[in-house]
Amino acid sequence: MLILPKAITVKEVGPRDGLQNEKTVISVEDKVAWINMLSETGLSYIEVTSFVNPKWIPALADCYEVATSIDRKPGVTYAALVPNQKGLEKALLADLDEISVFMSASEAHNLKNINKSIDDTFPVLEGVVKEALAEGKSVRGYLSTVFGCPYEGEVDVNQVLRVSEKLFEMGISELSLGDTIGVANPRQVQTLLEQFLRRFPQDKLALHFHDTRGLALANMYAALQMGMTVFDSSLGGLGGCPYAPGASGNVATDDVNYMVNQMGIETNIHNEKLLKAAQFIEQRLNKKLMSHSMLVHENNCSLDS
Amino acid sequence: MLILPKAITVKEVGPRDGLQNEKTVISVEDKVAWINMLSETGLSYIEVTSFVNPKWIPALADCYEVATSIDRKPGVTYAALVPNQKGLEKALLADLDEISVFMSASEAHNLKNINKSIDDTFPVLEGVVKEALAEGKSVRGYLSTVFGCPYEGEVDVNQVLRVSEKLFEMGISELSLGDTIGVANPRQVQTLLEQFLRRFPQDKLALHFHDTRGLALANMYAALQMGMTVFDSSLGGLGGCPYAPGASGNVATDDVNYMVNQMGIETNIHNEKLLKAAQFIEQRLNKKLMSHSMLVHENNCSLDS
Repeated sequence: MLILPKAITVKEVGPRDGLQNEKTVISVEDKVAWINMLSETGLSYIEVTSFVNPKWIPALADCYEVATSIDRKPGVTYAALVPNQKGLEKALLADLDEISVFMSASEAHNLKNINKSIDDTFPVLEGVVKEALAEGKSVRGYLSTVFGCPYEGEVDVNQVLRVSEKLFEMGISELSLGDTIGVANPRQVQTLLEQFLRRFPQDKLALHFHDTRGLALANMYAALQMGMTVFDSSLGGLGGCPYAPGASGNVATDDVNYMVNQMGIETNIHNEKLLKAAQFIEQRLNKKLMSHSMLVHENNCSLDS
Repeated sequence: MLILPKAITVKEVGPRDGLQNEKTVISVEDKVAWINMLSETGLSYIEVTSFVNPKWIPALADCYEVATSIDRKPGVTYAALVPNQKGLEKALLADLDEISVFMSASEAHNLKNINKSIDDTFPVLEGVVKEALAEGKSVRGYLSTVFGCPYEGEVDVNQVLRVSEKLFEMGISELSLGDTIGVANPRQVQTLLEQFLRRFPQDKLALHFHDTRGLALANMYAALQMGMTVFDSSLGGLGGCPYAPGASGNVATDDVNYMVNQMGIETNIHNEKLLKAAQFIEQRLNKKLMSHSMLVHENNCSLDS
């Protein structure tokens, strides 16, 4: 007998994880209009931006303006990523509902991405989490390269568990396990989650799949079978691999929503509104979004082939 | 505990199902060279063409020439689709190893595709199967619209079972259950297979998934969990939705092979050789194949994004 959750929460990371790699400049007005559209789709969680040094991610240099200009729809959690104390101060000024911190499970990726060893990253995040909590904000943790590292290959599960434990000790309320380079497979997802669920409560874990090799939805299905109920995704698959037009990065919110709704799993997200919001940002970016739902929607693929 | 098959058989339908929608003319020499390359990848089954009226599928008008010019590698089964007695005669002359017949599970699709009602299709196929068997050929059945019909929507499982039963009574040795328009979801796959496996032996059933909505690999994972071991696919995802560049039709052999190999399931297919064969046909078609494996292979997506 197949037991799947009755409902799941989809966390939209498009405005942050999706837009951060885009070369086309999107105005603050358009970002705000887009996030406001997302708020009306039924999504209950939107990561709106990242308070990082604009030197590193120029596309999100407008983080404060965007975060303070959007409508705050009751019932929707608006979150932002912060890398350090300086980012946190700005995010607190912007009065986001939730703060996200991030690090990698693999030493090499952490070094490359954060310029610090894993052990040297802990105190930085600890300070951020502590202050955010003191200011009444909940904190989400992102853990990258959980299922594989571009520099190290396989990542030892014990290492992943150790870093996760540390993040929970700091006081994060949820940990998002990231398949940063899209190398996870369903069997691995199942095996890893078995270990995680022995150590951490199910409702404190989320999955962040990339679709690089087309396995994101298969991995998601594996996670659903393990009872998982929180998934990150990016509308239209925004934020694909920056090196390949058409190649996928984040799994697409619209594809996720289609799959689970077809299986009778509730998301509360209105698919038509989702696709309208996708079309809006597609026009602003002036490039085709390559999610399956968008391709089917904008063409005639539902007919026979 | 997760139990998956130790090995599966991947049946390559690219030369038939993949090429049949392509507008670019591929010469007999190139088709032959390509199929010969496929024979060297480790694939044990290749559907090389279709003996249909060239009026309907001009791209496969060279069926006889292709089928009689390819190298027949020992251990590889070379098959071809036939719609009727006339097609069968030609296929027998070409001395294929196996014959495939096809029909739809839904009345409207069968009518549109074969121009006959389901009940009027049975005697035609019965004649073909009988003669093929008498000539010492095995026969495979394709059943379309098993998981949904573009004209009727949902298809009654009892109807699907009834048609399947009929096909097995004729003497087919394997039935390939087709998600012709790519609307299946993993829960449905699991539910439908439960019913099928109560009626038919597992080793007589195959799955033929389309990736229109990105669910093909998730559906395949669901089928693997049900113990299924035979899957159809098309190299590079060849034969995508004819209405949408980039949109998917058949699930890609290279993506299937990647997924199952990552899970430790044996296919005996050499992935590098597969990608070389994909690049060959990509050049001849002068268009990018949009399988995830090809996009990752030809770009740099395995690096961080």
